Amino acid sequence: MPRLVLIRHGQSAWNLENRFTGWWDVDLTDLGAREAKEAGELMAARGLDFDLCFTSVQTRAIKTLHLALEAMGRLWLPVEKHWRLNERHYGGLTGLDKQEMREKVGDEQVHIWRRSFDIPPPPLEPGSKYDVGQDRRYAGLEVPRTESLKNTIARVLPYWDERIAPALKAGERVLISAHGNSLRALVKHLSNIPDDEITGLEIPTGQPIIYELDDSLAARERYYLKDR
Amino acid sequence: MPRLVLIRHGQSAWNLENRFTGWWDVDLTDLGAREAKEAGELMAARGLDFDLCFTSVQTRAIKTLHLALEAMGRLWLPVEKHWRLNERHYGGLTGLDKQEMREKVGDEQVHIWRRSFDIPPPPLEPGSKYDVGQDRRYAGLEVPRTESLKNTIARVLPYWDERIAPALKAGERVLISAHGNSLRALVKHLSNIPDDEITGLEIPTGQPIIYELDDSLAARERYYLKDR
Repeated sequence: MPRLVLIRHGQSAWNLENRFTGWWDVDLTDLGAREAKEAGELMAARGLDFDLCFTSVQTRAIKTLHLALEAMGRLWLPVEKHWRLNERHYGGLTGLDKQEMREKVGDEQVHIWRRSFDIPPPPLEPGSKYDVGQDRRYAGLEVPRTESLKNTIARVLPYWDERIAPALKAGERVLISAHGNSLRALVKHLSNIPDDEITGLEIPTGQPIIYELDDSLAARERYYLKDR
Repeated sequence: MPRLVLIRHGQSAWNLENRFTGWWDVDLTDLGAREAKEAGELMAARGLDFDLCFTSVQTRAIKTLHLALEAMGRLWLPVEKHWRLNERHYGGLTGLDKQEMREKVGDEQVHIWRRSFDIPPPPLEPGSKYDVGQDRRYAGLEVPRTESLKNTIARVLPYWDERIAPALKAGERVLISAHGNSLRALVKHLSNIPDDEITGLEIPTGQPIIYELDDSLAARERYYLKDR
């Protein structure tokens, strides 16, 4: 039976500062790096192994993957990186401290932007210091200026269908290191979670999530590795 | 004009202890990690950039690449890992301290094994603790039991021809992080160095080597980045 492991990157500098990050490329904190290493140690201790890894093009997810693989003695595994696994783009909220935002526009509006399924935050203004549209890693791509969770899911799933699902069906053991919302997209898809429930699903940093799948890649079971 | 950059991994634990390493998977020392980071900083400061990276399946070369890319803000670049870029397999010498070897069999024999073009060291004995034949990263491969430099070149070049040369011809800027002898193989090929000279060519750790190539991938110039 195919098995898939998902891991959200360890704590980043802006997780710590409680700022909206999105496509801005923030590094792991020391705690985040430790979480990643410990995730690798846990996976190795439980006898998990992999054939193929996927991650985003964002430093925090890539480093989480590298640190976990190093702890497993598996740095040599093939790794494929793709922007479709990036975090949700938080538009004009990028860089803002969540507490400041709350004080400015009120708890309710922040909650709507963060948690609604299909309402994106206001778009990032052109010329914003957080505009990554000219970053070479996105050459040839029309970088979104904001995304709802629905938008995020819509750009994650083609990558699942095209690259990840075929690997799983071919019997490869897959590890994905990604972000809160790109992982929500996968969890929603695999576990058939309704629109109004997925926004409330918290995915903790650095905790391997195990999916036991059937041959059609429907979820038979989903659990945190630490709980077994 | 295509440009290629080669980098030998930073100092490893067994470089430091002066032991034959070959296919044994030894980590970088702190100095080796620093060399890798500084190589990345130097490349970034000189405005070098890349589209595609290649490395071996050995931790010391992979980590050197990751640390250099991180220093360049380029962790997101695609990386392809292949055993054909591994270090030369040192056979029965693997794990031995070079000084002990010299005392045991004499300077001359050690020099022959290390520096002759086509005489391999004695094969690694089956059951040796340094036998990596059962390592999962080599599944499906008949792992060599020893290699001359000639043997090493013979298994490096098909990978050059199949994966690296086509990328360069397609205009991609390529970075290769590898080992003393897999890099000798490439330098011999690109710079047309005779058999009896290539064995004496020392490739320092952590120093980016720049190749300016013509469209047929013949070398127009080769130099250390630090020297320009």
